[in-house]
Amino acid sequence: MAKDEVLDLGALQEHLAEFARAREWGRFHSPKNLALAIASETGELAELFQWVTEEESRGIAQDEARRARVADELADILQYIIRMADILDISLPEALWRKLRENEARYPVALARGNAKKYTEFTE
Amino acid sequence: MAKDEVLDLGALQEHLAEFARAREWGRFHSPKNLALAIASETGELAELFQWVTEEESRGIAQDEARRARVADELADILQYIIRMADILDISLPEALWRKLRENEARYPVALARGNAKKYTEFTE
Amino acid sequence: MAKDEVLDLGALQEHLAEFARAREWGRFHSPKNLALAIASETGELAELFQWVTEEESRGIAQDEARRARVADELADILQYIIRMADILDISLPEALWRKLRENEARYPVALARGNAKKYTEFTE
Amino acid sequence: MAKDEVLDLGALQEHLAEFARAREWGRFHSPKNLALAIASETGELAELFQWVTEEESRGIAQDEARRARVADELADILQYIIRMADILDISLPEALWRKLRENEARYPVALARGNAKKYTEFTE
Repeated sequence: MAKDEVLDLGALQEHLAEFARAREWGRFHSPKNLALAIASETGELAELFQWVTEEESRGIAQDEARRARVADELADILQYIIRMADILDISLPEALWRKLRENEARYPVALARGNAKKYTEFTE
Repeated sequence: MAKDEVLDLGALQEHLAEFARAREWGRFHSPKNLALAIASETGELAELFQWVTEEESRGIAQDEARRARVADELADILQYIIRMADILDISLPEALWRKLRENEARYPVALARGNAKKYTEFTE
Repeated sequence: MAKDEVLDLGALQEHLAEFARAREWGRFHSPKNLALAIASETGELAELFQWVTEEESRGIAQDEARRARVADELADILQYIIRMADILDISLPEALWRKLRENEARYPVALARGNAKKYTEFTE
Repeated sequence: MAKDEVLDLGALQEHLAEFARAREWGRFHSPKNLALAIASETGELAELFQWVTEEESRGIAQDEARRARVADELADILQYIIRMADILDISLPEALWRKLRENEARYPVALARGNAKKYTEFTE
């Protein structure tokens, strides 16, 4: 695992914006349309897992061909997320870290350990 | 737009892994389950756009409250993508840039300009 | 519009069960897997609409080829819904009419007319 | 299992059309918006299954509370499918039976038995 990886959002957003500009695709890239595109790519990701067991899905880490297909679908979703964030002027690092801090508060270890309850289902 | 933003995948994956470890959630986080979680969060994103027009969806950039909700859903999807990439040992930067280069080849400006055809529908 | 159409769920569920039995697909058809299959097919439906305007989407009613593609995707989702209902012993007519009555209560005409607010957002 | 169940599409479509007409929701119900609504409801279905095992998902048949939640989500997806079919003048029984015949041709028992390959992956 390359634990020092970063995603250069600035460069990616510039690339995606220029890609769309050159093709005059700006009018297609409304946030609403991008939401549909994300749903479409998420469906392709789901297709890769629909008939495999959980154990088989973990085994994809050791199956180069299938791992590449999953990577491809994750990239497809991700590019539309990055594009939508650019168009709506959303900071993904801010949104992500805010979410992670929120989850720390919502899922205290004492209540969440070993179960998959939603935080709204916790009863003291 | 903060055009020099980066996503620190290393730090995010470490945080998510430690978050799951502390709660003993490792067994829930199979790639298959994460695909369902991505589908679930994508549905929440779709909900934000289902009854708004495309023009209204562009206007969310100037509507702080709605923009925060979109940011929140994008972060939800993104955290599961980052987690799945970690578990399957997928490099997201590699997968993304490979995809972007592929799209450059699939959608030459001369064929793609001004239309939204899929590359498989191009006819010379 | 064939306003007297019915879906013969009994015959469809029998056909789908026999189809799966003959291919020894019973073990693949867990409700969880069928949820992923529904997400996958929903993604294919989303793909048909991602770059079209709302007006164009209404025009599909007069476009035989595109209408057939939409029909095809609706059928794909529907078959998995019908299959899941069979496996979990859910009555779809009951569930649907219960939902429709619930929506009548949640969305009184006086509050819902002309807006697309969710019922949880109504303020008296 | 009520093996003689039918879905009265005529009555359901009339109810849904009248429901929307009374609330002046016709302009919201473009096929494109309904595709987003289907994606949203599919996400809620996925949420019910994301952290359960396949075996647990089969057990929902004996768990009245969870079965009711699944039934509720299936009904939500289904109502939008039925509404979209009405608006685009699609016959769901025709589309479904066409699809089932197509699947019989695509998945001959001899090739499909015991595996979950997509028909495009069959090699003679």
